[in-house]
Amino acid sequence: MLKVGIVGGTGYTGVELVRLLARHPNAQLTVLTSRTEKGQRVDQMFPSLRGVTDLVFSDNTPEQLAGCDVVFFATPHGVAMKQAASLLAQGTKIIDLAADFRLQDTAMFEQWYGMPHSEPALLKESVYGLPEVNRERIKTARIIGNPGCYPTTVQLGLLPLLKHAQMSLVIPESLIIDAKSGVSGAGRKAETSLLFSEASDNFKAYGVRGHRHHPEIVQGLAHIAAQSANGEALAEKFKGLTFMPHLVPMIRGMFSTIYIRLTEAGQAIDVQRLYDDCYKNEPFIDVMPAHSSPETRSVRGSNMLRIALHKTQPDLLTVLVVQDNLVKGAAGQAVQNMNIMFGLDETAGLMNVALLP
Amino acid sequence: MLKVGIVGGTGYTGVELVRLLARHPNAQLTVLTSRTEKGQRVDQMFPSLRGVTDLVFSDNTPEQLAGCDVVFFATPHGVAMKQAASLLAQGTKIIDLAADFRLQDTAMFEQWYGMPHSEPALLKESVYGLPEVNRERIKTARIIGNPGCYPTTVQLGLLPLLKHAQMSLVIPESLIIDAKSGVSGAGRKAETSLLFSEASDNFKAYGVRGHRHHPEIVQGLAHIAAQSANGEALAEKFKGLTFMPHLVPMIRGMFSTIYIRLTEAGQAIDVQRLYDDCYKNEPFIDVMPAHSSPETRSVRGSNMLRIALHKTQPDLLTVLVVQDNLVKGAAGQAVQNMNIMFGLDETAGLMNVALLP
Amino acid sequence: MLKVGIVGGTGYTGVELVRLLARHPNAQLTVLTSRTEKGQRVDQMFPSLRGVTDLVFSDNTPEQLAGCDVVFFATPHGVAMKQAASLLAQGTKIIDLAADFRLQDTAMFEQWYGMPHSEPALLKESVYGLPEVNRERIKTARIIGNPGCYPTTVQLGLLPLLKHAQMSLVIPESLIIDAKSGVSGAGRKAETSLLFSEASDNFKAYGVRGHRHHPEIVQGLAHIAAQSANGEALAEKFKGLTFMPHLVPMIRGMFSTIYIRLTEAGQAIDVQRLYDDCYKNEPFIDVMPAHSSPETRSVRGSNMLRIALHKTQPDLLTVLVVQDNLVKGAAGQAVQNMNIMFGLDETAGLMNVALLP
Amino acid sequence: MLKVGIVGGTGYTGVELVRLLARHPNAQLTVLTSRTEKGQRVDQMFPSLRGVTDLVFSDNTPEQLAGCDVVFFATPHGVAMKQAASLLAQGTKIIDLAADFRLQDTAMFEQWYGMPHSEPALLKESVYGLPEVNRERIKTARIIGNPGCYPTTVQLGLLPLLKHAQMSLVIPESLIIDAKSGVSGAGRKAETSLLFSEASDNFKAYGVRGHRHHPEIVQGLAHIAAQSANGEALAEKFKGLTFMPHLVPMIRGMFSTIYIRLTEAGQAIDVQRLYDDCYKNEPFIDVMPAHSSPETRSVRGSNMLRIALHKTQPDLLTVLVVQDNLVKGAAGQAVQNMNIMFGLDETAGLMNVALLP
Repeated sequence: MLKVGIVGGTGYTGVELVRLLARHPNAQLTVLTSRTEKGQRVDQMFPSLRGVTDLVFSDNTPEQLAGCDVVFFATPHGVAMKQAASLLAQGTKIIDLAADFRLQDTAMFEQWYGMPHSEPALLKESVYGLPEVNRERIKTARIIGNPGCYPTTVQLGLLPLLKHAQMSLVIPESLIIDAKSGVSGAGRKAETSLLFSEASDNFKAYGVRGHRHHPEIVQGLAHIAAQSANGEALAEKFKGLTFMPHLVPMIRGMFSTIYIRLTEAGQAIDVQRLYDDCYKNEPFIDVMPAHSSPETRSVRGSNMLRIALHKTQPDLLTVLVVQDNLVKGAAGQAVQNMNIMFGLDETAGLMNVALLP
Repeated sequence: MLKVGIVGGTGYTGVELVRLLARHPNAQLTVLTSRTEKGQRVDQMFPSLRGVTDLVFSDNTPEQLAGCDVVFFATPHGVAMKQAASLLAQGTKIIDLAADFRLQDTAMFEQWYGMPHSEPALLKESVYGLPEVNRERIKTARIIGNPGCYPTTVQLGLLPLLKHAQMSLVIPESLIIDAKSGVSGAGRKAETSLLFSEASDNFKAYGVRGHRHHPEIVQGLAHIAAQSANGEALAEKFKGLTFMPHLVPMIRGMFSTIYIRLTEAGQAIDVQRLYDDCYKNEPFIDVMPAHSSPETRSVRGSNMLRIALHKTQPDLLTVLVVQDNLVKGAAGQAVQNMNIMFGLDETAGLMNVALLP
Repeated sequence: MLKVGIVGGTGYTGVELVRLLARHPNAQLTVLTSRTEKGQRVDQMFPSLRGVTDLVFSDNTPEQLAGCDVVFFATPHGVAMKQAASLLAQGTKIIDLAADFRLQDTAMFEQWYGMPHSEPALLKESVYGLPEVNRERIKTARIIGNPGCYPTTVQLGLLPLLKHAQMSLVIPESLIIDAKSGVSGAGRKAETSLLFSEASDNFKAYGVRGHRHHPEIVQGLAHIAAQSANGEALAEKFKGLTFMPHLVPMIRGMFSTIYIRLTEAGQAIDVQRLYDDCYKNEPFIDVMPAHSSPETRSVRGSNMLRIALHKTQPDLLTVLVVQDNLVKGAAGQAVQNMNIMFGLDETAGLMNVALLP
Repeated sequence: MLKVGIVGGTGYTGVELVRLLARHPNAQLTVLTSRTEKGQRVDQMFPSLRGVTDLVFSDNTPEQLAGCDVVFFATPHGVAMKQAASLLAQGTKIIDLAADFRLQDTAMFEQWYGMPHSEPALLKESVYGLPEVNRERIKTARIIGNPGCYPTTVQLGLLPLLKHAQMSLVIPESLIIDAKSGVSGAGRKAETSLLFSEASDNFKAYGVRGHRHHPEIVQGLAHIAAQSANGEALAEKFKGLTFMPHLVPMIRGMFSTIYIRLTEAGQAIDVQRLYDDCYKNEPFIDVMPAHSSPETRSVRGSNMLRIALHKTQPDLLTVLVVQDNLVKGAAGQAVQNMNIMFGLDETAGLMNVALLP
């Protein structure tokens, strides 16, 4: 049994990690820390966990986390990098669900997150935890930067096209991502704009002046493209993409509508088949049949990500991607990374069926 | 044109007052105050008001409110009583939507609201603004304590029975009020429990250890009962009522299910007719036909309160009451009071049709 | 591995059974029938099941169900009783999630469900599938009448009090049940009143002239009471209860607020302790600490039922009960019954943690 | 007072017309027809109208509608064209909220609506009722084809750019419309996919293989473009646009995110100013300040349409448009057309403030 700790267990990704890990066949949750709630029972804050865990929030100190094989950080940005070195020194691996180990460019990190990166060496060592792209590197990683929710949908929504970049299937600068997220994506923060009376029966765009996931999407797509023959040329052009997130009055769920122009080579190819082939062995990617209309509720509470492809014009591919922002978009993907890092069955603890209706 | 001020215009009752007063034929909104937002345009905070008002939040000082014929307080409890004397002195009438002028018993006020009452004399002068009960006194009042939302439904849901208390139609200590409110009733406060991700797709009781509207309900029912021959005897017994509020995942709307045992005299009477007669001239009370099932959405955005009666046992009357908690339960009733105080048509500015669907 | 069939797999209880059984360690789903959808893949109707099951809806014939150890009926009322005899004859056990085997009084069944009961002998043999009450009889049953959702909350909400009926703790005719259900309780039926645009942002009572669960509640409470020394006297009096169901704009979840007057004996007892003791070994009943406020979301997707007790007056006990209407209120309880009938671990396949947020 | 009739008053646009017309200062609602509900009181079907109208649904016959100055058709497609000639003959004007008089190309009408157009001559005479484009022609029209909800947002979202088409500001074939609608847009139809339990807490694309508003959008944009010097060249190219509608779990509200590439001329211009100027005299178009993020709730129940502009890339303009699909997207725009046709104040009856929260 892996001994597992969670730093910052009072947010939505934290409680979701508990939900998944509490029933994981190979992991045992041993520590949950919260500075603000230390001493309180976890199930007092989250009554859904009554009977599931007897844990009490403890202080976030190295001593508390000693003995953990792996620690998840479900904290605000900037916490994980401060504790990483000491945890690694005691042999504990790290999976950070915040942004500390996502952006390799420290200047960009500083620009978007408003703080310097205190551990550039560890950042360099860390692996971006998107299993469908980096599975081999994850196996031996000590630190995982768990991807953002939007970037997960976009990278997995375009991966098959970009892997074949040597054929230059797409026009990268044409990329438009019209993304929609449930409210839990904003976290468990007492902000007026997230109140039921504000967010319910309403729809809006947000982050219209720039969203932190923008540079992560650019980096991720460029990284994928750059691995192929002439991908370098494409990579730079992804900076011209447009990313427009919107807020949907639902708790969980993320829907990305991705528009990208196809080159002549791209128009000639059977994209449905390309995607089918690319993902046929992936346990958590479901390429739906042609003309499908995925729904977010079809993945509610599950680690599946579903993709449907539509040619809305001869030269325009529209990719529809759905996931549960808290599972494949956060805690589920983090557990998937843990499974890979420790040589477990990649699907262990992650085979819950989506809750529908 | 009446000159109208609103103190504390940044909450839900404040913006609802603006919505109603902006289209009122006899009133002109001249001042909105907010300490925290002074200098900001009102329509910047509430884009629904773009094109409706050009007002800017001003500081909450006597100078700002000078010249108003009437000032509404849509503030936290305890603000109105501090400003009341100086406003009255300059000839301005006051309608308080908070609790400062609701409970006549200052000890009880202090117990439930955690502050002493600084103006017991003004409290004594003030009138409880439930038009269907106190219309005559409202006409000449200088200070109105606008009723709480739950107490409005309960008092109007039982008024016809209690007016006839000389016949002792009901057993007061049997009274159980199972009440349900939309989330806006809690106000525009950045609290975790009011977040969309917490309150949506959920149902719970709250205030299970006591709700501030409890003593107001007891006072109101006792007051109504005491006006009839042997009502005094009944009045005291209402202290034995049970009031259980619940939170519904909807923005607006309040639904009170009121259970009360009937005496033999009560069982012998035609209660449907009793209610029909009692309310036949009331512009905002709709007694629905027998066996009706009122819905909160049937009053969404309107000042109507609808009542349906059900005899679920020979000796048990179940009264179903719906209102919009922000209109008849708050801002609409406040405007109704203003209309009465200033001799206007009582329905002026309040004839909006409910928004359905 | 048990071989399991589901008749009528296109409704919400049907798809919920699939969700639970697909991950059950001791059961294998082998047949799903649907007259209207035969030939269609199950996961085409419910994309949440893509990758979970390859089953195709088959016709509802005895041949299709031959070889099943147990068949669940997730059908309209009246279907199970017609097929029961032939299934039993071939050695297949039956768990009916409709009402065919709930009401022992065939005249009452006919009155409320508008059809004669075609199998009174089988009805007599059948066992009412409320494990906390009838566990021993369920072990050897061939036919289970799975309880209705509301009756489950009421019976389990009052069981500890009634088990001790020899002490006459309660006044049965005082019982008032103010119940609230999510919309999925009405099933997957294309009815106008269940549309999103009708049911959302709305609250209403329904079934105000009588609900089919009323006689089941009376029967269940009387049955429990009658098992104790002087319970017979109480039993009859439950006919005087009031049951008022309401519709909540949420998908899943049921909340029953139960008001019952206590006798002097009842007032003298420590009810919190009574409940704690009664349920201490029950895997799916959670008696919350005194003064708790249960939320429906705390059981979303799980088989738990949570209870909180409040003395709102010295002589009035208010019992708050929450469950997921589709799990403990339907499919989960049905699987629990299956586990008991076949000597499996009662919790097998039912330990999913509630989905929160 | 205009005498007004509504054919088909049982859907959402019908009841919305009643809401608006019941308080219109210059119109009197005299007839509501419904074949299925004839004889029933309107307020029995829609309790929100209790106290608002005493009308009874009557049969849909010419006699019933005789004497009306104007008749609104809130019916399925194909009804209005059948009754148009006889109504016109008796001097009654027609505003059709269905699609009978929207598409000028009868072949296209037949292709998308599955029926031949029975009145091509009247179609030719009819005017497309988008006041901001066709105000002068509406003044003298006898038949109005009231625009579809999506086409209203797209045409008004692009009008200022296209009016200046002589400068060729945009690249028409680059146009992508990612549109989102509340559920009421689908009407009051008892369909499974519109159930609360299906549509709530969910997000999906729909109409992915083609939506009926697509040809109307193409026609509308082409029409606007063609009115300018070199607009003809642009017009044809709009056939290359992509229109992707999505369903949002909210009752009312429509949000269109419009992406269009700018030519060099377009990039050089101040688009914010262009829009401000174009709409400065329009009573129902609100061009929000630069960098604004419009919300659908800011127009809930009102006839306003709000626009915000974002340059997400130097050559990519993103236009955000919100409206209430039942008001400016249907019934409100229809009343606006009526006001224009009869020489009334264009805003009469349409100045309700949006309901927020």
